[in-house]
Amino acid sequence: MNMDKSLLLEPSERIDDLLTHDLHIIQSDEVFSFSMDAVLLARFAGVPPRGKILDLCTGNGVIPLLLSTRTKAQIEGIEIQPRLAGMAKRSVAMNGLKDRIVIREGDLKELYKETGHGAYDAITVNPPYMPLNGSDIKLNPHQAIARHEIGCTLEDVIQACFRLVKPGGKVSMVHKPQRLGEIVTLMRQYRLEPKRMRFVHPRAHLEANMVLIECIREGKPDVRLLPPLIVYDEHNQYCPEIMEIYYGSKEGEA
Amino acid sequence: MNMDKSLLLEPSERIDDLLTHDLHIIQSDEVFSFSMDAVLLARFAGVPPRGKILDLCTGNGVIPLLLSTRTKAQIEGIEIQPRLAGMAKRSVAMNGLKDRIVIREGDLKELYKETGHGAYDAITVNPPYMPLNGSDIKLNPHQAIARHEIGCTLEDVIQACFRLVKPGGKVSMVHKPQRLGEIVTLMRQYRLEPKRMRFVHPRAHLEANMVLIECIREGKPDVRLLPPLIVYDEHNQYCPEIMEIYYGSKEGEA
Repeated sequence: MNMDKSLLLEPSERIDDLLTHDLHIIQSDEVFSFSMDAVLLARFAGVPPRGKILDLCTGNGVIPLLLSTRTKAQIEGIEIQPRLAGMAKRSVAMNGLKDRIVIREGDLKELYKETGHGAYDAITVNPPYMPLNGSDIKLNPHQAIARHEIGCTLEDVIQACFRLVKPGGKVSMVHKPQRLGEIVTLMRQYRLEPKRMRFVHPRAHLEANMVLIECIREGKPDVRLLPPLIVYDEHNQYCPEIMEIYYGSKEGEA
Repeated sequence: MNMDKSLLLEPSERIDDLLTHDLHIIQSDEVFSFSMDAVLLARFAGVPPRGKILDLCTGNGVIPLLLSTRTKAQIEGIEIQPRLAGMAKRSVAMNGLKDRIVIREGDLKELYKETGHGAYDAITVNPPYMPLNGSDIKLNPHQAIARHEIGCTLEDVIQACFRLVKPGGKVSMVHKPQRLGEIVTLMRQYRLEPKRMRFVHPRAHLEANMVLIECIREGKPDVRLLPPLIVYDEHNQYCPEIMEIYYGSKEGEA
């Protein structure tokens, strides 16, 4: 990355190092910054070596950027917020990945009308976690749309996955344990069969605060529950697997 | 236990120590012996201090015997196999618990006709794990009925739970991870909302081989994923929590 970074940035934005493959990303605490959820999903997701991958609710494009290190597939991301889609597009350009990653600005509910059904070999999604329940949302509009089901509900997301992934293709999601019952029911209702789950615990003796789940369209019922992923050890340090995911260079699935 | 044990036993049977509260149980490797699954379920299950608890597929009655140490509720067990129901009845008598535990011989699918709907405050069940798939079953008939869905399917079990537990009552099940998608879907179909899950891993770095799941009839969607329960540590010894469950005297939930 040799260009003058400042030319790329709008007010409040900064460039962060993704700490792998010399990738960098444009972020803004006022608009959107990725969290550990996205990093773990980008490692967990089953992705084909070639073909087409789609990332829904792509935000500032962190998942497409990270996936580009694991596959030679064409990667698309779709984001409903113009400001975030713009950040993602500039990050893709900044990393010289415009031939590998395309960022779409648009509504995931409408995308199948443009691409047709079953257009993708695999899909990833880190959707808004919180249902709309009428309570006050104490966030600015950018953050609110990223975190609350304003632009799309859980069912909208899962229905879009069903429409957009080909039969036999994989859909990987990160979400909160609280919603696991609804997630499993909706996925199976849309013929996306859960096949692999992993639960993320802040510490070994605490409840999980994150769920990674992979399903296969038209798959047969058969769930594997992977070893628990523990974030911090008893000395308040990252566990080795988290260190490796964040700072290591080893390829493979989480 | 001062009576002459040999009077209680039929051929192939033995008396095992349940290692807690001086409880003993009649077992037979030819007919039925309990496994760790039942012990973990008896600890995991949410049980009321009083009222009525039902254990479906009770086998030789191990779960009612263990639950009797955690509650003053009246406990019933139902078992479709006369030979196993007989063993369970003799174990209840041997432990002097005939006033607290009643073993029924019968079909769980028909029980609601006798008791009425919603007759129990809580239900536990360690059902047969394996679906009938036409493959040869290389077990004797007693073992086959206990392990395969011959006498009842997963849906039969969950429908019976729905009919027999009162609204707001808890249903706790132990099963295999492979079936988790079906279990969650069927439970929610019968208005049993999953609320608490715990996954049992033989070792910290291995996939789970057992699922503990508790739901509440007419509950609101909201799942908690408890800390992973690891059986063996890196020295091939039982982890402290397993030691405490098997050999400890401390009361409480797993």
